[in-house]
Amino acid sequence: MLAVRASRSALATRYGDVRAATTSLAAPLGPEDCTVQSMPDASPTKWHLAHTTWFFETFVLARAKPSRTPFDPRYGVLFNSYYEAVGERTPRANRGLMSRPTLEEVYAYRRAIDEEMGHLLARDLDGDIASVVELGLHHEQQHQELLLTDIQHVLSQNPLRPRYVDAPESRAARPADSAVGPSDLPPLEWISAPEGLRTIGHGPAADGTTSFSFDNETPRHRLFVPAFSLASRLVTCGEYIDFIEDGGYERPELWLSDGWAARRAEQWEAPLYWEKHDGTYHAFSLHGLQPIDPRRPVAHVSLYEAYAYATWAGARLPTEAEWEVASERCPIEGNFVESGLLRPRALSSGAAGAAGASGTSSAPRGVLRQMFGDVWEWTGSAYAAYPGFRPLAGALGEYNGKFMCNQMVLRGGSCFSPANHLRRTYRNFFPPGARWQMTGIRLAKDARDARDARDGRDASARPSGIGDSV
Amino acid sequence: MLAVRASRSALATRYGDVRAATTSLAAPLGPEDCTVQSMPDASPTKWHLAHTTWFFETFVLARAKPSRTPFDPRYGVLFNSYYEAVGERTPRANRGLMSRPTLEEVYAYRRAIDEEMGHLLARDLDGDIASVVELGLHHEQQHQELLLTDIQHVLSQNPLRPRYVDAPESRAARPADSAVGPSDLPPLEWISAPEGLRTIGHGPAADGTTSFSFDNETPRHRLFVPAFSLASRLVTCGEYIDFIEDGGYERPELWLSDGWAARRAEQWEAPLYWEKHDGTYHAFSLHGLQPIDPRRPVAHVSLYEAYAYATWAGARLPTEAEWEVASERCPIEGNFVESGLLRPRALSSGAAGAAGASGTSSAPRGVLRQMFGDVWEWTGSAYAAYPGFRPLAGALGEYNGKFMCNQMVLRGGSCFSPANHLRRTYRNFFPPGARWQMTGIRLAKDARDARDARDGRDASARPSGIGDSV
Amino acid sequence: MLAVRASRSALATRYGDVRAATTSLAAPLGPEDCTVQSMPDASPTKWHLAHTTWFFETFVLARAKPSRTPFDPRYGVLFNSYYEAVGERTPRANRGLMSRPTLEEVYAYRRAIDEEMGHLLARDLDGDIASVVELGLHHEQQHQELLLTDIQHVLSQNPLRPRYVDAPESRAARPADSAVGPSDLPPLEWISAPEGLRTIGHGPAADGTTSFSFDNETPRHRLFVPAFSLASRLVTCGEYIDFIEDGGYERPELWLSDGWAARRAEQWEAPLYWEKHDGTYHAFSLHGLQPIDPRRPVAHVSLYEAYAYATWAGARLPTEAEWEVASERCPIEGNFVESGLLRPRALSSGAAGAAGASGTSSAPRGVLRQMFGDVWEWTGSAYAAYPGFRPLAGALGEYNGKFMCNQMVLRGGSCFSPANHLRRTYRNFFPPGARWQMTGIRLAKDARDARDARDGRDASARPSGIGDSV
Amino acid sequence: MLAVRASRSALATRYGDVRAATTSLAAPLGPEDCTVQSMPDASPTKWHLAHTTWFFETFVLARAKPSRTPFDPRYGVLFNSYYEAVGERTPRANRGLMSRPTLEEVYAYRRAIDEEMGHLLARDLDGDIASVVELGLHHEQQHQELLLTDIQHVLSQNPLRPRYVDAPESRAARPADSAVGPSDLPPLEWISAPEGLRTIGHGPAADGTTSFSFDNETPRHRLFVPAFSLASRLVTCGEYIDFIEDGGYERPELWLSDGWAARRAEQWEAPLYWEKHDGTYHAFSLHGLQPIDPRRPVAHVSLYEAYAYATWAGARLPTEAEWEVASERCPIEGNFVESGLLRPRALSSGAAGAAGASGTSSAPRGVLRQMFGDVWEWTGSAYAAYPGFRPLAGALGEYNGKFMCNQMVLRGGSCFSPANHLRRTYRNFFPPGARWQMTGIRLAKDARDARDARDGRDASARPSGIGDSV
Repeated sequence: MLAVRASRSALATRYGDVRAATTSLAAPLGPEDCTVQSMPDASPTKWHLAHTTWFFETFVLARAKPSRTPFDPRYGVLFNSYYEAVGERTPRANRGLMSRPTLEEVYAYRRAIDEEMGHLLARDLDGDIASVVELGLHHEQQHQELLLTDIQHVLSQNPLRPRYVDAPESRAARPADSAVGPSDLPPLEWISAPEGLRTIGHGPAADGTTSFSFDNETPRHRLFVPAFSLASRLVTCGEYIDFIEDGGYERPELWLSDGWAARRAEQWEAPLYWEKHDGTYHAFSLHGLQPIDPRRPVAHVSLYEAYAYATWAGARLPTEAEWEVASERCPIEGNFVESGLLRPRALSSGAAGAAGASGTSSAPRGVLRQMFGDVWEWTGSAYAAYPGFRPLAGALGEYNGKFMCNQMVLRGGSCFSPANHLRRTYRNFFPPGARWQMTGIRLAKDARDARDARDGRDASARPSGIGDSV
Repeated sequence: MLAVRASRSALATRYGDVRAATTSLAAPLGPEDCTVQSMPDASPTKWHLAHTTWFFETFVLARAKPSRTPFDPRYGVLFNSYYEAVGERTPRANRGLMSRPTLEEVYAYRRAIDEEMGHLLARDLDGDIASVVELGLHHEQQHQELLLTDIQHVLSQNPLRPRYVDAPESRAARPADSAVGPSDLPPLEWISAPEGLRTIGHGPAADGTTSFSFDNETPRHRLFVPAFSLASRLVTCGEYIDFIEDGGYERPELWLSDGWAARRAEQWEAPLYWEKHDGTYHAFSLHGLQPIDPRRPVAHVSLYEAYAYATWAGARLPTEAEWEVASERCPIEGNFVESGLLRPRALSSGAAGAAGASGTSSAPRGVLRQMFGDVWEWTGSAYAAYPGFRPLAGALGEYNGKFMCNQMVLRGGSCFSPANHLRRTYRNFFPPGARWQMTGIRLAKDARDARDARDGRDASARPSGIGDSV
Repeated sequence: MLAVRASRSALATRYGDVRAATTSLAAPLGPEDCTVQSMPDASPTKWHLAHTTWFFETFVLARAKPSRTPFDPRYGVLFNSYYEAVGERTPRANRGLMSRPTLEEVYAYRRAIDEEMGHLLARDLDGDIASVVELGLHHEQQHQELLLTDIQHVLSQNPLRPRYVDAPESRAARPADSAVGPSDLPPLEWISAPEGLRTIGHGPAADGTTSFSFDNETPRHRLFVPAFSLASRLVTCGEYIDFIEDGGYERPELWLSDGWAARRAEQWEAPLYWEKHDGTYHAFSLHGLQPIDPRRPVAHVSLYEAYAYATWAGARLPTEAEWEVASERCPIEGNFVESGLLRPRALSSGAAGAAGASGTSSAPRGVLRQMFGDVWEWTGSAYAAYPGFRPLAGALGEYNGKFMCNQMVLRGGSCFSPANHLRRTYRNFFPPGARWQMTGIRLAKDARDARDARDGRDASARPSGIGDSV
Repeated sequence: MLAVRASRSALATRYGDVRAATTSLAAPLGPEDCTVQSMPDASPTKWHLAHTTWFFETFVLARAKPSRTPFDPRYGVLFNSYYEAVGERTPRANRGLMSRPTLEEVYAYRRAIDEEMGHLLARDLDGDIASVVELGLHHEQQHQELLLTDIQHVLSQNPLRPRYVDAPESRAARPADSAVGPSDLPPLEWISAPEGLRTIGHGPAADGTTSFSFDNETPRHRLFVPAFSLASRLVTCGEYIDFIEDGGYERPELWLSDGWAARRAEQWEAPLYWEKHDGTYHAFSLHGLQPIDPRRPVAHVSLYEAYAYATWAGARLPTEAEWEVASERCPIEGNFVESGLLRPRALSSGAAGAAGASGTSSAPRGVLRQMFGDVWEWTGSAYAAYPGFRPLAGALGEYNGKFMCNQMVLRGGSCFSPANHLRRTYRNFFPPGARWQMTGIRLAKDARDARDARDGRDASARPSGIGDSV
């Protein structure tokens, strides 16, 4: 996060774009929708709109202009998320009790802060302030994704099953999303990588400059990665139904101990939002309740379910290092929030998001696909500090570091993520029982388990596209 | 509830009045306010608006016109409160998760049902239907009071401390409410009544007609009531502060066992909504946070606190029979919702609400005051069926009877109650730990404890105004 | 409790008898059995043995000899039950954590206190001390019953299903308990009583002397009791199975609201300790798991189940006043702990416990049976202070009064009760959801519901045996 | 765990030794002590005695002799800990409800199984069976440590504060434990290690044989370890008091987010078992309540407290790889259960447990001490599968693998651990909030933070004793 190279006008433009994107995501929602908190982990839309604004007011404006009068001095208590160093705050579970400020008042708050920020961004900023603006924009993009996951949960609680927006099919035919027949689904292949000393994490570019990252992606560091294989694509709903129908939710030997306890306590029998009607699985999404398309990547599974599925499939989850190493030749392309689909997309042989060493449009055998977008991919790595990690100084040091316990890393972004928010080194994290996020599964194997991996090691050319990056 | 004598047009008029009163109570509130549920026991304003409408749709319109198409068949699940016989319903604690229907949609629902009801009420109704309309109107008046108690709780949770409306003082000087000096507070007297076989409960009038009551007020029946004395007025905030400052919340011997456990678990140190700022007690009300007026009746106490206070004061709570017997010569007058004060009123020597045998405007010594309005008065009587009680037939039999356990009776109405909703026989009931209702304390004593009572018994004339009503 | 007329030696003898009875009840149990606490409401046997001893040490010895050295000053913290006035105490739920003092040490504690008490009882006691000794003996008898109910719960938790003692059948044939054939079960009759002003509660005898009672049975007082009918016998297991098989546990309209919530939360489908094996109901008792005898009184039901059963049967539960009035001509005879059966006994036409106006051994039609012993009978009366009730002074005032909320009265005693512990005026009380006590059901009806009641009122002679006792 | 090289008689001898050690640990405890379960995470002594026996019966005897009659077929339900594959079991939290079998019956069970095992071990065993015997012995040693930690918790709950055994001081003066003056405490030094590709985990010895390990220690594998420094000794109670007195428990910025939540919810203000009396910290141990010796290693801290302490001290916790690499030249010596001290020991300059490259008795500067014994050392490593990890086949595969989530690794053993149970590769694990285990703190630093580390890197000889072990 250290150095921000964006020019003054580029940062102002980006500020405007990100802020506008947030309000456009909230646009289909009325004051009632924006007020409800459906569980302690999820926040009301109104809170997301205000908290992201409070972030700029607190960490940018108040620092840049210490004599400034706060917009409303009481907003800190309402809209501070978890920064202990910044003072008292409303308990997380009580965010849905705040009927005031109203949605309109929150929009007014956004406009007032945006105006102040506009003046600030028109001036020369010192590097520290610019860095925090950049952080604030990435922070806001994180909340864009949360806004969508949280409102999906809110709407799912309502027996009326309201839609956030109509499904794409009913708005207009979208061949890329709907024209894939079952036979088009590419087979799952194992893409291998040899063992080696690798380097992961975010660091300076070749020219010495450092682009933005969160502190938890640093420092760039070496580690030894044994040979492994990654599945060429995500696990689909159809494959997950096979797991369910093979008794996956009834066989404790497939599950982690805590996972089995969670499954029993919460009576999980399928991913979150799934319901069986007349023998057919349906899922509630931002488009309402719809039959499940077996070709789409499975979503809304916990780490526990991902682990059980992987065990059942004779595989395991990738480590975050394996994922990052494997992602190196994949372009950061895929089904992001900008596609407007708002759900994972079924893969076709020629679908976008495929990426090979050659980069040609015809997807070659041995190519990793869906690495970015669609669903966040659970890894088997506990979220922990990288060797030599230093949190940011001051209150912003609470941004990431203090959560480095009891959480698991996810990689790759989802159909709710803004495209320009993601990086290969990006580390998302959630507790292993979380299911309301747009989370899915990619399988991995040790090399000795994977025929492809062994084949790959023997071959003179590495068709897997995963090289030794030391 | 059996016979309704109101003429067709009188019922239609009353229907219009009651329904309009509900919407006028919701008028100061926006869509966000009306959506929030601050605890499982309290319901969102929107839910009150819709549930009362659902009551008429379900128990009146659907019965009167069985072939009728429901307004929205899914509303039953959303707006059924607790009628097991009517079908599935949303759990009580989830009422705040329903962002849809929106407030505007709920108002549209009200208008549509009101229009249908208008057509129905313009016709000759059979007596059963008219009875249910009458019940529905009293039901709606109960929800008017709940709407106010619940929104007070919602707003109290908000660190911004929003007001439902401005306090009367800031709107206009109201001498009746504010001109009472400390020295004007009438002393607490003990008003005695001799022992005797008494009759309580609702029954036919002298002319054989039966006016409305809830089923739990019937049948009218005899019971033996030993001699007792009632306090001439309610316990004030000032008196309650004496209790607090004498260690009332620290002395387990004053409390019921369950009460002491509640006090410790919930860390009660004063009535609900009280806070100490700079050494002075303030309370949050529908007018926001305001300093406490020691002359006002104390409110927002649980039965447990009322019991502890009474024990500390060397007295006890009245039984509901004592209260009802004593109320017989008190006119049903007082500080009701129509006063617009929305809080208990301090008593002056000549304040309204006083009532004597003579009915003169100068309040005589030995008169019970504040019996109706201001605050509901906790009694020491567990809520139970009267001898010979029969619940209503069908689903409406769930209205009252099934709650006859673990609740205590309250009497007299409050400053949130509509005046024409109350009766001397009216039995309100809440669990002993409830504090968010407008609940207060009137003391009682056994005759042998009360000097006034003994004096009264000796006197040839009974100045207490409580006669033998057998 | 005021005056104790027992001579010095009579009190000493009774002390010895009661104390010996307690240890004999604990005799079948080893140190491990006596240590376990199976739920917060139940106490370990060891705790009962010590707490009853602590009662004499604290309220008798320490008062009689203020300079006395306590047996172990730390025992107060361990063995004080709920006397806030006596000082700090171990939380109720932690009684099972106390491995020390050992069982042997507790027996030594009993012996030491008994020796001290022996010296005291050999002297002339002042009346106050003698009263407290008497209270302590009744207190200990209450704990004898609790010891049995609590150890039944402990043993029921053990998958080994250990027996406290073998069933009487396997010890020796007991005709009185086992020789009743199904056809012998007397039909349920309705025994009527006319309305009237009655007197209940404990008071002085005709000669002006006052025998022992708990404070909650006083004062003796008048009340008006409408005409009613009581069932001539207890509800049997067979009748209760009919209720279950008619969907009694699936029909919310039969239940109190809190009862239905408890049934769902705790998944009740039958009385506590019942299990279905191969289509037949069995119940765990102090004799282990045994098939249910349909003729035996049903036991281990909550007030909620008793209420639902009564509603299903078209009846209701009696009030405690009805029960006490009706009991007046019944001798205090029945199946108490001295029978050694340790479970309710099936009724035969000529069984002991029947009682008629004539008192002859052939039980006439129209006789109330099983009024004492077998099972405590839930009443529909909330536990509350009698008019004019005064608790004992000092810490012993906490004995009964502070529990007068959220509890229901039970009457009559059980097969776990010592015979000389019971009185017609005895008021037992438990929360409505309690099931581990030896609790059962007797039905009542309003007179207008009961053919027998009407017949009785017309008849010149009242065959019901329930007279007007004013 | 694969190959067991022990001769037949060696295994039988070891079986006898381990089994006898368990009963000798239980010897000071009576039947009541052995029955109590003080919290769900801790088990009664009786359960440990029986469960370890059940392990041999189920996994050894039942496999070796399939036709064998179980000792008691119901014991599986009682004494299965968590093996889902083996069938139904008593919930963990209910282990304290089992008064039967009695302690004496459990000892009889032990004797019976030991006799059967004796016959089996006298024969030639196939390698698989011998492996499971070996596993069962290590399993029993784990339960020896748990037995001590759990009974300490049981006794701590008792207001009588009973002792498991008297403190060594009162038994006999033990110079090694008590003769260390404050000035003798060696200063904390930073022992550095250079970066490098290292190998950790359990694998075959140089001669190709494989000694026992748990499956979670395998496979031996390479990983890259950056330069680091370890503290030369454990954090002491005195240092921890400095942390407390500097507001360590009041400063959220020092804590992990989940840690701060735990601290607040459970109101931690010091390590478990600490109490302040008259301004001095005392701690409850197996010797009862005693003043804290500031020179002893701090114990009974959670990972959360260890993390907060390390942050406060400007350091961090070591990774498990760092610890294992650093341990390579330390002999497995220290204060284990065999010392009889049953608590961590203060370090003196010449104390046992010091270990240098030279192995001389005079501890040189730059030597890691207390690496084994005294307290388990929290690492910053989440418990996870090593690359290529394969759990054991069948039910024993549940031994370790299914817990690889939400737990943190601890290293080194404690004063409750049997000496011959430990290995450098041994991975203990507990949830981060656990405090009742004998857990303490060793600090680490990145090389760039540690002056000693830099010095070390410059030096031609590495005094730290941590070499490059690739």
